[in-house]
Amino acid sequence: MIDITAEKRRIRLRVSYDGTGYCGWQKQNNGVTIEECLTDALRQLLKKEVEIIGASRTDAGVHAMGNVAVFDTDSRIPAEKFAIALNRYLPETIRVLYSEEVEKDFHPRYCESCKTYDYGILAAPIELPHLHRYRHHVYQNLDVDKMKKAAEYIVGTHDFSAFCSAGSQVKSKVRTVYKLEISEQQLENPIGVPYEEKNRDIHIFITGDGFLYNMVRIIAGTLLEVGMGRRSIESVFEAVETGNRMKAGPTAPAKGLTLVGIEYLH
Amino acid sequence: MIDITAEKRRIRLRVSYDGTGYCGWQKQNNGVTIEECLTDALRQLLKKEVEIIGASRTDAGVHAMGNVAVFDTDSRIPAEKFAIALNRYLPETIRVLYSEEVEKDFHPRYCESCKTYDYGILAAPIELPHLHRYRHHVYQNLDVDKMKKAAEYIVGTHDFSAFCSAGSQVKSKVRTVYKLEISEQQLENPIGVPYEEKNRDIHIFITGDGFLYNMVRIIAGTLLEVGMGRRSIESVFEAVETGNRMKAGPTAPAKGLTLVGIEYLH
Repeated sequence: MIDITAEKRRIRLRVSYDGTGYCGWQKQNNGVTIEECLTDALRQLLKKEVEIIGASRTDAGVHAMGNVAVFDTDSRIPAEKFAIALNRYLPETIRVLYSEEVEKDFHPRYCESCKTYDYGILAAPIELPHLHRYRHHVYQNLDVDKMKKAAEYIVGTHDFSAFCSAGSQVKSKVRTVYKLEISEQQLENPIGVPYEEKNRDIHIFITGDGFLYNMVRIIAGTLLEVGMGRRSIESVFEAVETGNRMKAGPTAPAKGLTLVGIEYLH
Repeated sequence: MIDITAEKRRIRLRVSYDGTGYCGWQKQNNGVTIEECLTDALRQLLKKEVEIIGASRTDAGVHAMGNVAVFDTDSRIPAEKFAIALNRYLPETIRVLYSEEVEKDFHPRYCESCKTYDYGILAAPIELPHLHRYRHHVYQNLDVDKMKKAAEYIVGTHDFSAFCSAGSQVKSKVRTVYKLEISEQQLENPIGVPYEEKNRDIHIFITGDGFLYNMVRIIAGTLLEVGMGRRSIESVFEAVETGNRMKAGPTAPAKGLTLVGIEYLH
């Protein structure tokens, strides 16, 4: 049998996952990660070790609708078939939604892109079990109008040092937030439970050219404090201006965060 | 210290749960159930054994937004405080949403009521991880208009023998379905995944005076077959008319089913 292998191609995957219980994207010694599950699936499919490069190394507990990863292969499997082929080897909490061939020099982290995150909050007197995995629950009724006003100070090109956790090694902390929108929706209540007006599903959608370590979660934590009346709208301006981490709010919990998707500009 | 206990009161709870991983409502030897968790929480709160009576003994894997349960107590805890007090002893996948005092002769199963269920279906080329626990996933594109037409044969007072699993011991299989509505919603897709028109979230809402064993799941399984083009609209009429279980469709998986709530008529 002659082994005719094709030329190396670079395949790009769009990956969705429920991050609950995973130790984040990146391979670690002490727990299962998304990267590891994908590498295992590729090994089972292609019968060899394949290195994958992820776009966003999401933290433990963070979800994704559309993270991006690439790998190189000389397999003859058509690019668009990798999604379905890999899903057979993945747990139900991870799914490859789409696969395609890209230019060989495409790099998911170094190519210019714009990322969108969704931070979901359930403001309700009692946490709802079916949203438990995907929303940060707060008891307080949030003032969303105030949160929207404070959000205006986040939009634009700024040094986001105040919104970056210690341990980040990036050179520049200047990033551009293109858009920050806050939506709210009254949740319908089960029959016989008179809480209607109090159960609100609030989402902070944020789009930018890149995000620092924990940046979205610190922005969410800061806006939450504004919504709770624990800090003023102007204090957000001050945090941005001074670049002082102490002036921003706490890092909101991982489970509220979902990477909605990544758009590549070229 | 004199122990002054109050008169016995009957307390009604509205209970919500993510049924994934539970062996249903009713106590069993081989796995954790919702009833057991509630009984344990009551024991921890009241320091004694308390029997609870549930309205709907949902199957393993079935969810609830608003199931109902009652118990009798001579504790002096205000009725409306039980919800928050019990939640402290419950896992995050079970929450008491509301508690109130009811008449002593109120019985959650024997008092006249109307129940609403929601059967959720994700029709999509690839299952979405964040809906994995709460939707039955089908690859096919469903013809919802046909499903709606077939549903008209379900509404009304009928002998639902064809839609009842073996093992049911009820005397009469006549039930009234007041309402059956099917909604569909296009799901927004992660950025960079071109499946938009194909990801549909479909819900079968059904309200009735009572449901036989597996009745909602068999109705869902039958309507699904209509939507997939595997059976005619008229075949649903035939199933209802003949009362022959073989003429109806399969029992759809538990995880798609949610008990939305129970309304008591008096």
